[in-house]
Amino acid sequence: MMKSSLWLATILCVSIFSTAVADDPLVSWQDTMAKKSIIDFVEKVTQVDSPNFVPVPERIAVFDNDGTLWPENPLPFQLAWVMDELKRRSPDEPQLAADPMVKAALAGDIAKLLEGKHHDGLMQIVAITHSGMTTDEFDAAVREWLAVAKHPRFGRLYSDCTYQPMQEVLTYLRVNGFKTFIVSGGGADFMRVWSEQVYGIPPEQVVGSTGLTKFELRDTGPVLIKTTEHIFVDDKAGKPVGIHQFIGRRPIACFGNSDGDKEMLEYTTINNPHPSLGLIVHHTDTDREYAYDAHPTSSGKLVEALVDASQRGWTVVDMQRDWKIVFAETP
Amino acid sequence: MMKSSLWLATILCVSIFSTAVADDPLVSWQDTMAKKSIIDFVEKVTQVDSPNFVPVPERIAVFDNDGTLWPENPLPFQLAWVMDELKRRSPDEPQLAADPMVKAALAGDIAKLLEGKHHDGLMQIVAITHSGMTTDEFDAAVREWLAVAKHPRFGRLYSDCTYQPMQEVLTYLRVNGFKTFIVSGGGADFMRVWSEQVYGIPPEQVVGSTGLTKFELRDTGPVLIKTTEHIFVDDKAGKPVGIHQFIGRRPIACFGNSDGDKEMLEYTTINNPHPSLGLIVHHTDTDREYAYDAHPTSSGKLVEALVDASQRGWTVVDMQRDWKIVFAETP
Repeated sequence: MMKSSLWLATILCVSIFSTAVADDPLVSWQDTMAKKSIIDFVEKVTQVDSPNFVPVPERIAVFDNDGTLWPENPLPFQLAWVMDELKRRSPDEPQLAADPMVKAALAGDIAKLLEGKHHDGLMQIVAITHSGMTTDEFDAAVREWLAVAKHPRFGRLYSDCTYQPMQEVLTYLRVNGFKTFIVSGGGADFMRVWSEQVYGIPPEQVVGSTGLTKFELRDTGPVLIKTTEHIFVDDKAGKPVGIHQFIGRRPIACFGNSDGDKEMLEYTTINNPHPSLGLIVHHTDTDREYAYDAHPTSSGKLVEALVDASQRGWTVVDMQRDWKIVFAETP
Repeated sequence: MMKSSLWLATILCVSIFSTAVADDPLVSWQDTMAKKSIIDFVEKVTQVDSPNFVPVPERIAVFDNDGTLWPENPLPFQLAWVMDELKRRSPDEPQLAADPMVKAALAGDIAKLLEGKHHDGLMQIVAITHSGMTTDEFDAAVREWLAVAKHPRFGRLYSDCTYQPMQEVLTYLRVNGFKTFIVSGGGADFMRVWSEQVYGIPPEQVVGSTGLTKFELRDTGPVLIKTTEHIFVDDKAGKPVGIHQFIGRRPIACFGNSDGDKEMLEYTTINNPHPSLGLIVHHTDTDREYAYDAHPTSSGKLVEALVDASQRGWTVVDMQRDWKIVFAETP
């Protein structure tokens, strides 16, 4: 016991001190108001002798993923995986290949998938790729894809397309005693495969959309089979619901980029007994990433939350103006 | 930033070192096989140079609550709260007081509440006390009760009725890099009110039965209203399902006391690529606590899991034989 405890203590201390002595925790940020609002907030809640001090266990920070920590264009990455997964499985599964919506997906007919109020085609190909297998089988399929698939524009592995300025925010908050959570409309099972490696966020701190699994004890051991029962969509008003269900306390910092994050920004910042920070990443950078907000065809529509931002005191990050770099130079 | 990081590092180091130098981490345990199995397991998975070493992030330990960390007799404590809550509310709420099942509860007619395959009466009074209010209102009601309500036999606050030997296991595991979770059939919202204070387990590490909440932005601020939609029962086969949904990885240590814990013991210990520990608290102690297992009227029936224990290699704790004390002498 002694030995491992000493080892643990050493790791903890070394990692804390070495990060704490860095001069600028947000080196990829321009010295503009956005950066200042983050640093001012963290300094305010961590000053022990201040009335704004927030005890460590209550330093909960929540981050949307798609469009906040990594891109969501030309497709959300999970959807890129769905497309590739259908390509991978179709040759061996004639019944799957014969499905009209799978055909549409393989033909790149996104418009057909998005038809109908509930985007039935899209929902169907998501269901096909996210249910009927064990959680281990699903994990393996995602893991194998992530090791080789590359973003069509940036030519990097998807996991190397995270926003460097936001990685710095994650680290900066954790160094200051925050627990960082993903709260995303994406599938929890999809994100948990790589969240620890990509963001340093362990699976138990990933809140996302979920369906129930079914437990079976097989001859080979216990398995959980993914189903489409009790689907919980962790988006819009579902985000504060997911935060309560999975985390069980109110965050004091919330980072998003679209109207899907509006309710969790409200939940975090309005009448919170603690000081709070709400931040929106505004995609304004065609050259280095993408520029979008009100465009009806893009994922990540940002209209209402942008209007509310000034009234609510939310920081709006202008990606082009406020970030020195978007991605790390060396992946 | 520096200041708070130093402070954090100091706290972490002091708490780790001071606990690590204690001679015996499980002083309330007799020196029997049960204690040895816990210590052997922890030493095995924490030895850096051993093939059985488990990296810190994968040291996940799950604990049932009722009957494992504190008693579940004469009633599970949450049900004691339900009864007291109905008493508290009835005088001001004539409609509630007129409900036949509320009447049965107030008259102590437990048999009536348990009638029917699904214990409809019981479900009804649970629904009445667990939905229709905001999460803040629910929290406050539980918190106020917990501050004054006492266990009918032990004469202590319910929160002072935790098993001291299990508190030592929680601490011992955490000192050795484990993350400790509650995985209980009890309501997550009920347990999260006091889990941090009572067990040092923060709300985000409490997995329990849940219903969805509904988000509303009111003039006074955002609220979440408790509903009975999408009820998830975190018991039996629901426990591994809950573990996957909330934690997202397989535990290596699992502590339970009833057949309701059988599936999570299986999920933890059968064909786990890491070494694992399964442990069952067997209630054998009429004098100091309670003795029950197959009794049909008691909560916490233990029959099947007890039969499976030897085949599965699960440790069975005989409370009377293996624990020096059950409760801390001074609450």
